[in-house]
Amino acid sequence: MNFTTKLRAAWTSSNSLLCVGLDPDPARLPVMLRGRPQAIFEFNKAIIDATHDLVCAYKPQIAYFAAQSAEDQLLQTMEYLRTRYPHIPAILDAKRGDIGSTADQYALEAFTRYQADAVTVNPYLGGDSITPFTRYADKGVVILCRTSNPGAQDLQDLVIDGEPLYVHVAARVAKQWNANSNCLLVVGATWPEQMRQVRAVVGDMPLLVPGVGAQGGDVKALVTAGKTADGTGLIVNSSRAVLYASSGDDFAQAARRVAQASRDEINLYR
Amino acid sequence: MNFTTKLRAAWTSSNSLLCVGLDPDPARLPVMLRGRPQAIFEFNKAIIDATHDLVCAYKPQIAYFAAQSAEDQLLQTMEYLRTRYPHIPAILDAKRGDIGSTADQYALEAFTRYQADAVTVNPYLGGDSITPFTRYADKGVVILCRTSNPGAQDLQDLVIDGEPLYVHVAARVAKQWNANSNCLLVVGATWPEQMRQVRAVVGDMPLLVPGVGAQGGDVKALVTAGKTADGTGLIVNSSRAVLYASSGDDFAQAARRVAQASRDEINLYR
Repeated sequence: MNFTTKLRAAWTSSNSLLCVGLDPDPARLPVMLRGRPQAIFEFNKAIIDATHDLVCAYKPQIAYFAAQSAEDQLLQTMEYLRTRYPHIPAILDAKRGDIGSTADQYALEAFTRYQADAVTVNPYLGGDSITPFTRYADKGVVILCRTSNPGAQDLQDLVIDGEPLYVHVAARVAKQWNANSNCLLVVGATWPEQMRQVRAVVGDMPLLVPGVGAQGGDVKALVTAGKTADGTGLIVNSSRAVLYASSGDDFAQAARRVAQASRDEINLYR
Repeated sequence: MNFTTKLRAAWTSSNSLLCVGLDPDPARLPVMLRGRPQAIFEFNKAIIDATHDLVCAYKPQIAYFAAQSAEDQLLQTMEYLRTRYPHIPAILDAKRGDIGSTADQYALEAFTRYQADAVTVNPYLGGDSITPFTRYADKGVVILCRTSNPGAQDLQDLVIDGEPLYVHVAARVAKQWNANSNCLLVVGATWPEQMRQVRAVVGDMPLLVPGVGAQGGDVKALVTAGKTADGTGLIVNSSRAVLYASSGDDFAQAARRVAQASRDEINLYR
């Protein structure tokens, strides 16, 4: 099944635009899991089992696994999602970007090794760094546009012919790079006005929206600015606010409570 | 020893600006190594042993290891370089870029896990995505500026206030992000005019220059455009032309011949 179809089905079946980001920081894992050899996978599994009916996607962040030499536990997490919850898309957050021959290798990493449904990529190297991903027509390719961090302004807001760089990126993706209809964009929750601009340029293209929860994005503002006419179009990611709702033995239940509140708050404004 | 000091010493001791990129593509490994469990490491080791006196740096490209689930062989390669040739800088080509808390994890991957002397990063997310790397003051941080691929033109050439984006990136790095004097820039060999512009903006900052060899960059033009007054300032990378000079049993000697010819050609124009 192609990514967009899977995503739309997940939006409907979960009645949710929420995505939980899996950023397993060893310093913040629940006390009961610390020091266990498979702590990262056990943590992810518990979070997934506690939230699966509340989300439209999961987004493992590969940096947290790479820093801990835990590729095996990323594989386990991806396999667990694929076998136990095959209807939920898994977006590998990797922000890869390189010249074509190297991008081919990164596409193998995301789509063959980890069997991700989608991967995040960086547009700075241009179209021939994106094609090695988009040619996997059944996979989603989530291209950075306007990121959630303060430094986003440094380059992404520079103005070219009256429009900021991120609008040029959005237009380039919508008009050129999306030939297989499998592109998405990252637009940070912290920037509803920018999201409105991007939405105007890209039509119904799905947007991955990091920055609610720990990063402080305003849910009402972002949903209003970013939703499509049918009340979807957004994958609203929360990582730390859900994962680290509690460091006690109740961490999974606490994560569920935060995820449910987050889903319900988002749904208020659809 | 900090990266810049190590690089300068390596430029002098090897009388070379050549860097060999370690991009171990399983489809192109020498016949004699194919199918062996440690083929990637054995290949890298043979290439390194055959070329160590001809280069100022090595640049393993992490995508080739990640695609093959060969993080262990990247570790072996880095450890071999560090123990056998501790005077040669190892630049991990990873082109990472993410918000601060995630960039912290990528910095751990590059500098703690792999103990790289330097890492390549992507500037699209702005200054707070770069600081987690530059705060390792002894490490080099090699920021993409004008890349070697044709798609580089898509975003990097967009003109802001009369100057292309890549010149803005160069200026931002030189004036703001280089507080620890440990930044370098990537400027593709395929664009000598752009290299001249960047050199004019960044003074003596070292440039990593991919795109000679298989990508066809003109050595005379790039060295003339990019060198500093003392005839250094460049790390000229060649990967495929050296690595795959022969697929026979003589692959290491063939790699040495190409590396030597490359070094000597570069030196003609210093």
